[in-house]
Amino acid sequence: MATPSTSVAPTPLLKEELDIVIPTIRNLDFLEMWRPFFQQYHLIIVQDGDPSKVIKVPEGFDYELYNRNDINRILGPKASCISFKDSACRCFGYMVSKKKYIYTIDDDCFVAKDLTGKDINALEQHIKNLLSPSTPFFFNTLYDPYRTGADFVRGYPFSLREGVPTAVSHGLWLNIPDYDAPTQLVKPRERNSRYVDAVMTIPKGTLFPMCGMNLAFNRDLIGPAMYFGLMGDGQPIGRYDDMWAGWCTKVICDHLGLGVKTGLPYIWHSKASNPFVNLKKEYKGIYWQEELIPFFQQVTLPKECTTVQKCYIELAKQVKAKLGKVDEYFLKLSDAMVTWIEAWDELNTSGADVAPKGNGPAK
Amino acid sequence: MATPSTSVAPTPLLKEELDIVIPTIRNLDFLEMWRPFFQQYHLIIVQDGDPSKVIKVPEGFDYELYNRNDINRILGPKASCISFKDSACRCFGYMVSKKKYIYTIDDDCFVAKDLTGKDINALEQHIKNLLSPSTPFFFNTLYDPYRTGADFVRGYPFSLREGVPTAVSHGLWLNIPDYDAPTQLVKPRERNSRYVDAVMTIPKGTLFPMCGMNLAFNRDLIGPAMYFGLMGDGQPIGRYDDMWAGWCTKVICDHLGLGVKTGLPYIWHSKASNPFVNLKKEYKGIYWQEELIPFFQQVTLPKECTTVQKCYIELAKQVKAKLGKVDEYFLKLSDAMVTWIEAWDELNTSGADVAPKGNGPAK
Repeated sequence: MATPSTSVAPTPLLKEELDIVIPTIRNLDFLEMWRPFFQQYHLIIVQDGDPSKVIKVPEGFDYELYNRNDINRILGPKASCISFKDSACRCFGYMVSKKKYIYTIDDDCFVAKDLTGKDINALEQHIKNLLSPSTPFFFNTLYDPYRTGADFVRGYPFSLREGVPTAVSHGLWLNIPDYDAPTQLVKPRERNSRYVDAVMTIPKGTLFPMCGMNLAFNRDLIGPAMYFGLMGDGQPIGRYDDMWAGWCTKVICDHLGLGVKTGLPYIWHSKASNPFVNLKKEYKGIYWQEELIPFFQQVTLPKECTTVQKCYIELAKQVKAKLGKVDEYFLKLSDAMVTWIEAWDELNTSGADVAPKGNGPAK
Repeated sequence: MATPSTSVAPTPLLKEELDIVIPTIRNLDFLEMWRPFFQQYHLIIVQDGDPSKVIKVPEGFDYELYNRNDINRILGPKASCISFKDSACRCFGYMVSKKKYIYTIDDDCFVAKDLTGKDINALEQHIKNLLSPSTPFFFNTLYDPYRTGADFVRGYPFSLREGVPTAVSHGLWLNIPDYDAPTQLVKPRERNSRYVDAVMTIPKGTLFPMCGMNLAFNRDLIGPAMYFGLMGDGQPIGRYDDMWAGWCTKVICDHLGLGVKTGLPYIWHSKASNPFVNLKKEYKGIYWQEELIPFFQQVTLPKECTTVQKCYIELAKQVKAKLGKVDEYFLKLSDAMVTWIEAWDELNTSGADVAPKGNGPAK
């Protein structure tokens, strides 16, 4: 479609290859602030909670919206793997996307400013992170060696300088840091004001706490591992959705030789969630994670696992065998992991169409 | 000794417990710029090259100075393990120190400025890094969790939040980056102007290129591993002294449960060394490191290695057995590693005194 060339913003990077996934229970006024950066992209909104509520999306955004009724209709009995009343529901958006890249952001995240006071285009930085290689096998002391003005330092093996494809870009948060409930309670006034001007690869074999607030990934490379688990309504745990996805994803990236980056871009996280509510959601997670981390640190995947799906199914088996002893929740979670992969494969074969609501074009 | 209280600077951190080690071939005018930060500390100057040359040290510094004649006199036949005509000679200073902490800096490094334009007290930041724990078992996305304004983020296991003792603090460089000769040749004009306001632990199992330009360590915890190898005069290789020490040190820190940090503080690296000269020194290292890195990535130390010395002797054995095939240089290096430990133990038993030159008090 021809448009007048004078008043049109330049076509942003990966415009046709990236979906922005937003889980929400409220009107999306926060998009106003993101308009210059998001308006040319397609949004997938996953409405959590009461499906009869109408979520208002500001004018001019191209989106599709799914509520719980849509999820149930599209997935049928397999909808059981998608959490309800928890932002973990966002992973449904990853599943129904047909794009190569996903950016997901929480609706309490605003545009942050860089050290010069300029608005940060978070999405653009994520795309740069995803399109340049990662270096998981050896640490570069000047951080991202592919960034302008930087390189590999003396002593960095030349054979490793090509890097590996980047699967995940984990962005950070200014203002309200992503603390657990106990830390929120102990430090209610702590704000993150330190702008660390770096992107780095998380080394192979090292786990990290992946936060889903400001996260991008290559869906083709790692999508099926980005399952946010069973959280919220009817589950004994919340606020571990992104952590679970991060641990599974990192182990699979390490196995498949893919990279995970963290650092820039920052978003402005506007408001701390209630620490008392969070404590209730988290307390089993805080306890269980002491067993989960050693499990993920020791897990190995056999050579036969050559696709993300195969890795994930194998991981589900090991979760059942080893974490089932920790709590029966993990038996249920293991089954849900398998269901997730079945649903993913169903929706991601050619011809699958899910007929979304919203003003966007049918995919 | 009582001193007038009005004109005296406050006693700096670890004044009696830290030596500053400087390898040099020239007059130490660069110390003028460091006077406010170094003058209250004791310096160990290791004079490289012609021992008859007189090195001028600015007035008012407390130092001891060793030239090649001193090294030969003190170590006798074991002096063969100390490099000549290469800054690797600096490790002799680590050996003769009797302090708990070492800071080593090159004489072409000046005081850098932070983001606010303030002079950076590099030594003070190193001391902070060494006195606070490290977190090698899990990555914290907000970097150093012990720093003011930061903490462990959601999903960080509570059992790991105590951290482990920090053995090494690796500082960075503004202006001239620490590039190898090929990168210097390709990017002669590249300058590092990015101030990354972060300190982080290098995760367990991850190797890094340790640069000796701006480096601090806990001598009690890791000193005997800080051997800078056989470089320079009579050796087929140069400019891999600090790299070698870094790989050995990291493997031993990982085995003993000690931490290695990198990041702040920055110094201002004033001048690039000649890339053509560097290429000649480095080219075997560039070639060999492709075999060295896999060796260090795979090396494991047996449980019986409970001290740095035992670890280092075991490492020397494995160097001989596995890297001896790469080049006979590594057979010689392995022997020198053993000699180094013997010399270290000789000088570091009670009563050992090495009668240094200089105006400092005999140790």
